[in-house]
Parts: sequence; C-alpha cells; structure tokens
Amino acid sequence: MTTDTKLKIIEAGASIIHTKGFNHTGIQEILQAAEVPKGSFYFYFKNKEDFGLQVIDYFIDHFETKVATILTETSMSPIMRLETLFNNFENFFSSQRCTLGCPVGNLSQEMGDLNETFREKLNEAIDCMAQKYIGVLSEAQLNGEISKELNVEETAYFMISSWHGALLRMKVTKNMEPLLLWRKFIMNHILVPADQ
Amino acid sequence: MTTDTKLKIIEAGASIIHTKGFNHTGIQEILQAAEVPKGSFYFYFKNKEDFGLQVIDYFIDHFETKVATILTETSMSPIMRLETLFNNFENFFSSQRCTLGCPVGNLSQEMGDLNETFREKLNEAIDCMAQKYIGVLSEAQLNGEISKELNVEETAYFMISSWHGALLRMKVTKNMEPLLLWRKFIMNHILVPADQ
Repeated sequence: MTTDTKLKIIEAGASIIHTKGFNHTGIQEILQAAEVPKGSFYFYFKNKEDFGLQVIDYFIDHFETKVATILTETSMSPIMRLETLFNNFENFFSSQRCTLGCPVGNLSQEMGDLNETFREKLNEAIDCMAQKYIGVLSEAQLNGEISKELNVEETAYFMISSWHGALLRMKVTKNMEPLLLWRKFIMNHILVPADQ
Repeated sequence: MTTDTKLKIIEAGASIIHTKGFNHTGIQEILQAAEVPKGSFYFYFKNKEDFGLQVIDYFIDHFETKVATILTETSMSPIMRLETLFNNFENFFSSQRCTLGCPVGNLSQEMGDLNETFREKLNEAIDCMAQKYIGVLSEAQLNGEISKELNVEETAYFMISSWHGALLRMKVTKNMEPLLLWRKFIMNHILVPADQ
C-alpha cells in the first residue's frame, strides 16, 4: 500500500462526508468508494476520529491552495478579487444543483458540540479562512475600496459565518437565491467606501 | 397510552436531535429518555421520518408561540422588540454554554440534501420565521426606525440565514463572540435609519 492509497481514502471520505456528514458516514462505505481493500483503513488511520481530522486538514489545504489563491491575485483590485471568488463559489454551487455547502461549515454544525478535538480543529480551519479575508480586506481598505471605519477582522468573520448560513439555507431552498442575497447585503451594506 | 405519551416522545426526541442531529439519534435512545415502553414509538409514528417531521412541527410551534411572540409586543417599538429578542437569544445560548444552535438551522444543514420531505418542511419552517421578521421590519420601516430603501423580505431572510451561520460558528468558538458580532453588523449596517 502506498500514500496514494491513503489519499484515495481521504478523497473518497471527504466527498461522502461533504454530502452526508461525519457520523452518518461508515468506514465500509468510504473503502468501497475508494476501491481499496478493507484492511487499508487501520493501516493509515488510528480510528474514525483520526481519519475525520485528516479529512478536515484536506479541506483546509484545498481551501488554501485552490479556493483562496484568487484573493492574492494582485493583477486585480482587492474588491475585484472578492467578486471573482464569489463568482467562482456561485458557479460551483450552481453546477452542484445547490447541494453540499461548505465542508468546514457543515462539520462545525454537526460536530461542534460532540467532539472537542474536532471543535478545536474546525475553529482553527475557520481562523485560516478568516486570515485570507483579512488580508484582502486590509488591502481594500488601504486603496479606499472599503471604509477605513470597518474592523477588517470582525468583517472577515462575519462574512464567513453569514456565508455558512447562506449555504445552509441554499440546501433547503435548492436555488441560488440565498447566496445571491448574501452577496447583495455584503457588497451593498458592508464592503462599501466611506462616502456611501 | 395517551397523547401525553406522544408529547413525551416528541419532547425527548427534539432535545436529543437538537444536540446530536437526526441521523445520529436512535429510536431506542429517544424512548429511553422519554421513559416510555418500546412499543410506543410505532403506535404514534409511522417511522423515524414521520417522527422527524413531527419534531420539526414541534420546533416551529415553539418558535411561533414562545420565541417570536415578543415581535408583536406593541408596547415596545419594532426595533426595541428585535433588541429584546436578541437579548433573549443571547441569554439562552449563554445559559447553554454556546451549544445546540437553532434546531431548524441544524436540520437544514444536515437533511437538506438527504431527504426531500424534510427539505420542503424545513424550507417552510424558515418561511414561517421570516414572516415574523417581515412583520416587525415593516413596522420599523413605517415609523422611520429603519430605511425605507430596505427590502424587508430580503432583510428578513438575510437576518435568519446569517444568524444560523453565527450559531454554527458559536458551536466551534464556544463563546458568544459570533452572536455579538452578528448583532453588531445587523444593527450597525443593515437595520439603520435612512440618514445614517
């Protein structure tokens, strides 16, 4: 067995957990989806909790190396980078027919009260996301795209948590309206220049 | 067996589902908590799904008859009613040591992609909540407490979904900061008079 096998298990598990949640996902189901032998799981992971924590690492890594890279793309203004990220998010969830949501948000809701190790890890994951937003918001503030009155740290956390809430509602409306509404309120009421 | 037994099962189930989610809660566990005989469940409920849907009805009824009544309390201004509701929410979640979240929000996240009947019911539950906010926001608009430019329907849905997101993050920070931040952004950036 190689580390490719480990990655296959994590990728298969991440995908199932993203849809069904952690507690509702069985190890057997993950191994079947990954098409690896039954014994592989305990070769790579101490237990299901250890596996779940590594799946969260995988989600954070995906966010940092795939999703958030646009936020440091200096060929665009900070606000234009955010608009591009929001377009990417909307295209993704539209292509997924308004399913899934954010894996970190989903697991925070599911596991925050049930497992202290998960809780700490998920709190750190949200902090990682927030750092990316704080960076781009600080730049937007420097170039006057958003008001200097705004606390960029608080704004970053409010954006993330309200986005998680919008995704949660998207899962029951099964249309894009909650995401478009989120963007409208964030762009028209929060991320505005001082003179608006 | 009486309808008291049915209510006991629903109340016990509602409490466990609020903490652990629907899929992670077993029928046996509910019956034990309710201290009713094993046979009772299928006397009152067709299956676990039927039970879950009745638990959502119970949550909606609780919201309408206990939580949201403050929003039509005409001895206070509309904004003062909202501030009182937010105080009540904060007191509740503080007393619960930042656990639980909103049962309708939790189930929307967990079940929105997994069960079409739950999804429709939860969508209706959020619509019920929104109606309460639309009422009080319309009054606030009439008396000039909030800008006439605001679309009260959109604002109601944004408030609810961003609140669900704040509760989600509260579950991982295990402090009140996400709820206080939500209130700050809603009150300082959204629910403001026209001249601010």
